[in-house]
Amino acid sequence: MANTSATTGLQLRSTVKKNGVLELSLATIPIPEPKPEEVIVRIDASPINPSDQGLLFAGADMSTAELSGTAEYPVVRAPLPPAALKAVQGRLDQSLPVGNEGAGVVVRAGASPAAQALIGKTVAILGGAMYAQYRCIKAVQCLVLPPGTTPAEGASCFVNPLTALGMVATMRAEGHTALVHTAAASNLGQMLNRICIKDDVGLVNIVRKAEHVAVLKAIGATHICNSSAPSFMEDLTEALAATGATVAFDAIGGGRLAGQILTAMEAALNRTAKEYSRYGSTTHKQVYIYGGLDRGPTEFSRTFGMAWGIGGWLLTPFLQKIGFEAAQKLRERVAAEIKTTFASTYTKEVSLAEALKLEEIAVYARQATGEKYLIAPNKALR
Amino acid sequence: MANTSATTGLQLRSTVKKNGVLELSLATIPIPEPKPEEVIVRIDASPINPSDQGLLFAGADMSTAELSGTAEYPVVRAPLPPAALKAVQGRLDQSLPVGNEGAGVVVRAGASPAAQALIGKTVAILGGAMYAQYRCIKAVQCLVLPPGTTPAEGASCFVNPLTALGMVATMRAEGHTALVHTAAASNLGQMLNRICIKDDVGLVNIVRKAEHVAVLKAIGATHICNSSAPSFMEDLTEALAATGATVAFDAIGGGRLAGQILTAMEAALNRTAKEYSRYGSTTHKQVYIYGGLDRGPTEFSRTFGMAWGIGGWLLTPFLQKIGFEAAQKLRERVAAEIKTTFASTYTKEVSLAEALKLEEIAVYARQATGEKYLIAPNKALR
Repeated sequence: MANTSATTGLQLRSTVKKNGVLELSLATIPIPEPKPEEVIVRIDASPINPSDQGLLFAGADMSTAELSGTAEYPVVRAPLPPAALKAVQGRLDQSLPVGNEGAGVVVRAGASPAAQALIGKTVAILGGAMYAQYRCIKAVQCLVLPPGTTPAEGASCFVNPLTALGMVATMRAEGHTALVHTAAASNLGQMLNRICIKDDVGLVNIVRKAEHVAVLKAIGATHICNSSAPSFMEDLTEALAATGATVAFDAIGGGRLAGQILTAMEAALNRTAKEYSRYGSTTHKQVYIYGGLDRGPTEFSRTFGMAWGIGGWLLTPFLQKIGFEAAQKLRERVAAEIKTTFASTYTKEVSLAEALKLEEIAVYARQATGEKYLIAPNKALR
Repeated sequence: MANTSATTGLQLRSTVKKNGVLELSLATIPIPEPKPEEVIVRIDASPINPSDQGLLFAGADMSTAELSGTAEYPVVRAPLPPAALKAVQGRLDQSLPVGNEGAGVVVRAGASPAAQALIGKTVAILGGAMYAQYRCIKAVQCLVLPPGTTPAEGASCFVNPLTALGMVATMRAEGHTALVHTAAASNLGQMLNRICIKDDVGLVNIVRKAEHVAVLKAIGATHICNSSAPSFMEDLTEALAATGATVAFDAIGGGRLAGQILTAMEAALNRTAKEYSRYGSTTHKQVYIYGGLDRGPTEFSRTFGMAWGIGGWLLTPFLQKIGFEAAQKLRERVAAEIKTTFASTYTKEVSLAEALKLEEIAVYARQATGEKYLIAPNKALR
């Protein structure tokens, strides 16, 4: 039921105070009058992605967090370590809204026909400030979900699906023919497997635990390497030789994994080398770090010749690079396959206030594979 | 005086035996009859570049080297550590010639007019096997040096000059407007300073010792940062802000320097940021590792946003990428400015046999800035 009479709504805020303390709270903010091209979406579902947690927690030590305030308006405070504080000088004392993406129902619309046409539609939206009961957004930014799709089903239409599609598109654009993915049993990793199976693209999955091997086997993955197995480097080299993958997308970031991938790629390439090359294989090998599940330093021994690169990869610059029309095609594919290829699963659904409970934070802040939360900002109202 | 009657010549060889021992020796090889398009160059000068030493020493522990053989035909043997041996499986038991570049006089030529026209000319050549008394090579590969240029003056026409020019060209091709160079007081670093001063390109020099600061000041360098100074990160950030450099060429490879450069670039870019961006600056920051003065692991903390890359950079793929004509223009510039912009200095001139003396190896294998050797393969004959 569309609540069209509300004039204010709750919004989750994250503030790093000048004294180095993170403060999470709920603010009551007015719902703006939509401009002609805008609509008001009642957010019914918004996922807590790893990419949300950088802005949300600002690197604070959440294991020492303290709760105050009321049940309805909880306030969570946690100190930032000095290094984290240094990294967020640009946001001190700013009360920032959080939440990259979400889905809900259009409850009010501006005067333009495009906006009016969306009234009552269930849409997915991207653009920040989604951990809120209402979000004012341009009609053109709304991805209309196929009839029968719930907001919970459509909540993760952008970040994971477009990242997975972006990986395959980047692979192709840079001349590679197969790819590697780490933390591969994640929601994103499962989507990537479904894309690669459907599109017949070679994919090497790297996971850290035996139970994650089972998850991926169940969805039909062919190449799964467990980095905690003693035979990891041999397994990885075999899988790379079998697929010819020379580009990897790494969600871990820290530690030695990126370098291990390059080393195994070089070993796989050298299997077919005809003569000794002092600078190693001339085939370019690339690892893109797109996440930071391990925030520690990245370390590698340069045992993979000279034709290699390690770099950051982000969805937004990728979408800007390919342009609106190409990006729109990807978004339309996501909407069409939201219940199959791009289906997400969640461990738990919480309200905005519940998302600030210390026991919930303790779970979702771990960013463990298979423990993904969904915020339902209007849960109490339905 | 051209020795046109010789039928054989000495050539330095490097062999890694299956038992894991490196063997350096001199072989007497026949001088081939040049084909119509070829010439025979009497090599009078060939530098020992860091890029030669990988092939020459194969990662062997030269501090434990032993000398045998005769004064005329010395043999040096040194064991390879297991990791080094693993990396050179592709060259086991192959007797390999060494020496990327050199200069000398054309003493014999094939029948073609192009080859005949070179007889008696002093030329610079690139292509391996230059630690030898004679080298058969295609006439088209010879860079004729301006009259009055000695082989010693023209010995380093390719590796350092083209690498320095390649750095500036890569900087421009990838949209950067200024660059950073490490181990900046080297022969290559000095050339790069002269190029950048002449071409009005911003250059940030990173050196490791106070005496290297003086070397660069003397040739007119503006931005010199000493990585052993306590104020290094502040100095570097200042210089990066002043020049706008967002690409670096790093000869060190191991350790934390590459990451420090990216961190300082990010800090310099964020000085002008208008609002907080959770993913850091959107300007791409790049470090190319082109050498390995520190063969240890590379380590970095990812404190520089997501728009960054670290990768290998090599001269040969760069030259292939720009094509023969563009590369030829660079070579012609080198020949024209060989006594000024591209002048090299050497600590010592040694014969082939002297290059295998343990006390000489102990000096040049250090690859210390300001201790560069020149091999004069026909020294005893002049």
